[in-house]
Amino acid sequence: MINQVTWIWYPGDFEIWLHEKISVLREERGRVYPPFWRLDAAYKSVRFRKECDLKMDDSITIYAEGDYYFEIDGKIIYSDIKNYLVTKGHHIINVKVYNPNTFPTIYVEANEIGSDSSWEASISEMKSEVVGCWNFNSSTDKPSQFKLSTEKIYSKLIEVKDNSTLYDFGKETFGYVILKSIKGNGKVSIYYGESKEEALSSKYCEVFDDINIDNGVSEDYPLSKSRAFRFINVVFDKTVEFDGLEALYEFLPLEYKGSFKSSNEMLNKIWETAMYTLQLNTREFLLDGIKRDRWVWCGDTIQTALMNYYTFYDLDVVKRSYIALRGKEPTDSNVNRIVDYSFYWFIGINDLYLYSGSCEFIENNYDKMVSLMDFCLSRLNKDGLVEGQGSDWTYVDWAEIDNRGEVSTEQLLLIKSLFVMEETAHMMKDFKREKIYGKIAEEIKLKTFQLFWDKDKEVLLHNRVEGKVLDKVTKYPSVFALLFDYLDSKQQVAIKNNVLLNDNIQKITTPYMRFYELSALCQIGESDYAMKEILDYWGGMINLGATSFWEAYDPALKGEEQYAFYGRPFGKSLCHGWGASPLYLLGKYFLGVKPLTPGYESFEIAPKLGGLEWIEGEVPTAKGNVYIYKDKNTIKVKIPGGKAYLRFASSTEPTSQDGVVKYIGDNIYELELLVLNKEVSINYEI
Amino acid sequence: MINQVTWIWYPGDFEIWLHEKISVLREERGRVYPPFWRLDAAYKSVRFRKECDLKMDDSITIYAEGDYYFEIDGKIIYSDIKNYLVTKGHHIINVKVYNPNTFPTIYVEANEIGSDSSWEASISEMKSEVVGCWNFNSSTDKPSQFKLSTEKIYSKLIEVKDNSTLYDFGKETFGYVILKSIKGNGKVSIYYGESKEEALSSKYCEVFDDINIDNGVSEDYPLSKSRAFRFINVVFDKTVEFDGLEALYEFLPLEYKGSFKSSNEMLNKIWETAMYTLQLNTREFLLDGIKRDRWVWCGDTIQTALMNYYTFYDLDVVKRSYIALRGKEPTDSNVNRIVDYSFYWFIGINDLYLYSGSCEFIENNYDKMVSLMDFCLSRLNKDGLVEGQGSDWTYVDWAEIDNRGEVSTEQLLLIKSLFVMEETAHMMKDFKREKIYGKIAEEIKLKTFQLFWDKDKEVLLHNRVEGKVLDKVTKYPSVFALLFDYLDSKQQVAIKNNVLLNDNIQKITTPYMRFYELSALCQIGESDYAMKEILDYWGGMINLGATSFWEAYDPALKGEEQYAFYGRPFGKSLCHGWGASPLYLLGKYFLGVKPLTPGYESFEIAPKLGGLEWIEGEVPTAKGNVYIYKDKNTIKVKIPGGKAYLRFASSTEPTSQDGVVKYIGDNIYELELLVLNKEVSINYEI
Repeated sequence: MINQVTWIWYPGDFEIWLHEKISVLREERGRVYPPFWRLDAAYKSVRFRKECDLKMDDSITIYAEGDYYFEIDGKIIYSDIKNYLVTKGHHIINVKVYNPNTFPTIYVEANEIGSDSSWEASISEMKSEVVGCWNFNSSTDKPSQFKLSTEKIYSKLIEVKDNSTLYDFGKETFGYVILKSIKGNGKVSIYYGESKEEALSSKYCEVFDDINIDNGVSEDYPLSKSRAFRFINVVFDKTVEFDGLEALYEFLPLEYKGSFKSSNEMLNKIWETAMYTLQLNTREFLLDGIKRDRWVWCGDTIQTALMNYYTFYDLDVVKRSYIALRGKEPTDSNVNRIVDYSFYWFIGINDLYLYSGSCEFIENNYDKMVSLMDFCLSRLNKDGLVEGQGSDWTYVDWAEIDNRGEVSTEQLLLIKSLFVMEETAHMMKDFKREKIYGKIAEEIKLKTFQLFWDKDKEVLLHNRVEGKVLDKVTKYPSVFALLFDYLDSKQQVAIKNNVLLNDNIQKITTPYMRFYELSALCQIGESDYAMKEILDYWGGMINLGATSFWEAYDPALKGEEQYAFYGRPFGKSLCHGWGASPLYLLGKYFLGVKPLTPGYESFEIAPKLGGLEWIEGEVPTAKGNVYIYKDKNTIKVKIPGGKAYLRFASSTEPTSQDGVVKYIGDNIYELELLVLNKEVSINYEI
Repeated sequence: MINQVTWIWYPGDFEIWLHEKISVLREERGRVYPPFWRLDAAYKSVRFRKECDLKMDDSITIYAEGDYYFEIDGKIIYSDIKNYLVTKGHHIINVKVYNPNTFPTIYVEANEIGSDSSWEASISEMKSEVVGCWNFNSSTDKPSQFKLSTEKIYSKLIEVKDNSTLYDFGKETFGYVILKSIKGNGKVSIYYGESKEEALSSKYCEVFDDINIDNGVSEDYPLSKSRAFRFINVVFDKTVEFDGLEALYEFLPLEYKGSFKSSNEMLNKIWETAMYTLQLNTREFLLDGIKRDRWVWCGDTIQTALMNYYTFYDLDVVKRSYIALRGKEPTDSNVNRIVDYSFYWFIGINDLYLYSGSCEFIENNYDKMVSLMDFCLSRLNKDGLVEGQGSDWTYVDWAEIDNRGEVSTEQLLLIKSLFVMEETAHMMKDFKREKIYGKIAEEIKLKTFQLFWDKDKEVLLHNRVEGKVLDKVTKYPSVFALLFDYLDSKQQVAIKNNVLLNDNIQKITTPYMRFYELSALCQIGESDYAMKEILDYWGGMINLGATSFWEAYDPALKGEEQYAFYGRPFGKSLCHGWGASPLYLLGKYFLGVKPLTPGYESFEIAPKLGGLEWIEGEVPTAKGNVYIYKDKNTIKVKIPGGKAYLRFASSTEPTSQDGVVKYIGDNIYELELLVLNKEVSINYEI
């Protein structure tokens, strides 16, 4: 079989090149603000190699980004390669490319030996790697020209002052503002606002552009930088005139594969707003937020990736993000410099494997998984526990918390990462490492529970400082211990009552940690409670006029206070990827679909009403879409493939023609579905 | 004390940026030919940091290559920093710079806190390093604008044909050719030749330029690329006219600190030609040769650096070269991909320390010394010996040699590298590593002599393949074992007679390995023999018309055969750094000056006539120039500082007012010089 001919590059370098470009788009009041982690760049000199046994003569033409030389069977051909005849038989072809501007990439047009993933790339001509490639399938479709799509959008003029006009685009959006038919001479300032208040605050709005119009002759003036906004305030010299604002909305084309409807209108609005929030942040990479950082943060990525699996099921943007996050060797700091974010990187890759079923990403990145784990383990303290070293950032959450010393949450995340690495090493047949990872995981798990499980109070404590475990109880370790299933059933009940449902424990005020909190609650059967929280918390933002969900939301704050963060009046991002967590919660715990084995070879459907009349929706999987409907008596499902197990509570035994019903105790029945692509209906009673 | 304000950058990044630029200047018949090792690039995003206690208010202005933001005491100042007032007291200043085009660098104008080596740089804001800087001492003298100097040179027209003219610049040179007053329209081809034959061979000359003249109006046309040449053949369309050739000679300004004269005119010519050869190759870095590779190779660098210490004593170009050779982490291949070249890197840095006395370079690069040694040790075979792994290149020399398996020369180079690292670790107070390196060195040394020392034949054998030591004897292991002083006196004599002076052993035909061969001979008292070899071998090239010394020279080859190499008729470089080794040999073994302790705190002067009537010269040292004259009865020396020991043979006891004479056996006397900057004269008899 002949593969699709495509542009190829050194593996990871498209992503790393793109990430470098994207990472420096952050501006703080007009000044560039590069990330504070190491900014890696693509290699500039790469050798591409193909060894082949040609069945017949082939004619090849090389297109390259960069200068190159071509070598066949050790002989350099000193010219551009156009319709160059390669005779049948065995050959070794090398194409060495130098590109100081973007990154070396080639497209080799040929019948049998065109550039595809059977080629190898090398940076020192020592070790060869399978090349990277991604959908750049014609000679003119050059990888370095990669751009998101754009579409014209329109605004409404909502306020006119002497030398300023305020426009509303109706909802949060992103793109390049266009000043219509501008003419004259003078200065124009564009103040961007996610809120009206922000746009009107020339002094404190987070993003602005100043431009000079020089003999404008009624032409549209598109701004050169893409920005996040809903409101725009334009302040201009009187010597300048223009005819309103439009914008080029910039977006990654995404298909809404997942869907959700229910009997609750607020919930439906939450789902739609969450979809739009996720969509805006799903771009070259999974960004944290579109206004301020525009960076790829692993804590954010692991969540938006999970949301993605239940909605767009765009695996490519997830892969791009994990490659970008990891960057290049050497590994001399944590991912994003944050201790927990290294751990999320392992866990996130495991999620990707579970939801996609593809081993390829792990195979291509296993070396980097090993070296990051080496790094993490090299930084354990003398007791063999995680403790931030030097300028490591032990983050956990935006909250008033004391993260000095050994933080129990960090231990739990490391334990999980080690179990992931144990499983991954097994898959890679690296049995020596498999054993080591498993052993260290068990040791740290034992120590963690010995230290932090308070037997009297039956809670997990937050941290130990200089050998002393402090009294402080936070929700974080409880949430992760539940999610990772590290508690026995007695501990689970205790944790639920003493911590998660205990009003005296410090509340979580970021959607970021609410993601895990509500997941944990759903996991231990508190889905009615979780549904109420979703409606209250995300409904609370909707009631404040949110058209996308926020970085943080504390219902107690009033008016403009809601917009402040990091000590700046408009510091808060009002369109933050992690704000969209209802997508994941509704898909996984209410529509109830989750893979049991990688790639949905087998999966569970365990729909929950959460107190509503009915819910309905689709969940994309590696096999296609799963359809689910549930009301108070009926469940309907349709599956595209895989072994599916429908689980539901019923007080009487249901029957089905389309699968095998099994009682598994506690009024729970399991229906193993036997038919594909056909709606299966079952009645239950509760 | 306030330091000189200067441009600062992340340590090593100026060198790595410059090295990237220089490394891709190699062309093969018009096509770019990047190195086959990994080409590293400077970081693009760097944070510069200064913590200070200002005694009085300071006003600062920042110049940057790249975009930046300025932060003082945690607060970002959102503007260009011009005459910004920093009040007296304690401050932390950060300047974060992003530069995707060259590399981030800043110049901070201020009284107390101007940019200098007290600033730190960081790429992840985790670990800070002392910044790099080098003589860019004004705001307008930007590091990225670094250029060598140029000077007009002229040629002689020596041959005119119908549509071509041949020019001779009189000697090997380097630079940008200028077509004088060119006019008309048409194609002009410039064929460069280190020999006349090469310039006249449009098909096989290694380097050429094709240009198109489009309505030329009698203006000088300078070529855009710098090239090596002596002869230029210009082939042109008849529709083009020009008025001869000039060139801009491009060079690194260097001072001829060392000098040498003798009673032998050929030797004087050899010294001058060697100086010119070294000068042409001493550029941004110590290049191997100026025509073809124009690359930095460690095997070449270690030798040209040693020649440099006896001539230009330009330590900066040596440092730049060793930084460029090492590149960045991770260390996933040998230096230049060659096993021996990693070892030369350690030994070369030790030379630099010995000749300069400066610890700074080692302090700044110790981490990279450790990680390269880690890499080397990680690749030992199961018997704990060096053996090329994968596509490692075990080079040793250009010669018909079998370098399969364990090559004894490689073991000796590793042993020496380990002893260097033992000494370096001690200096860095890294006593744990000091012990490890010493132990491994002794173990490998023991094994090496057990395996390769043939007790019957009393020779060192070349290699072991698949467990079997082969019979082959080459000069290489003998030479290094002598130079590193790993032989007892009985072995030394045996090696001298059985190998080095044995005509049946394969001859060395590169100046590269003749460097070590003749050094070893001088070291064991064969300076008369070595002098004869120098006169024959380098004199042989002079007699063939060489104006600079060659990459390889085999007196047995005839006519144009001398120019062929690598299977190409003009493949040989006729101006190769390693061709200039008489500079080192004459300085160290005939003028006889060598440091005994780092930085010439103490040094030896042991002049040898090598059979000549007289020799005279100066050797630059860390203390200044040492003057030496010797004839058959007199020695005159003048030293600028340091403890100097003049050693010479005499059959009667000499006397001196200017130092203490000591007899040390075997008719050798040592005079410890007691006066500085005064010519001391002594008479001896032999």
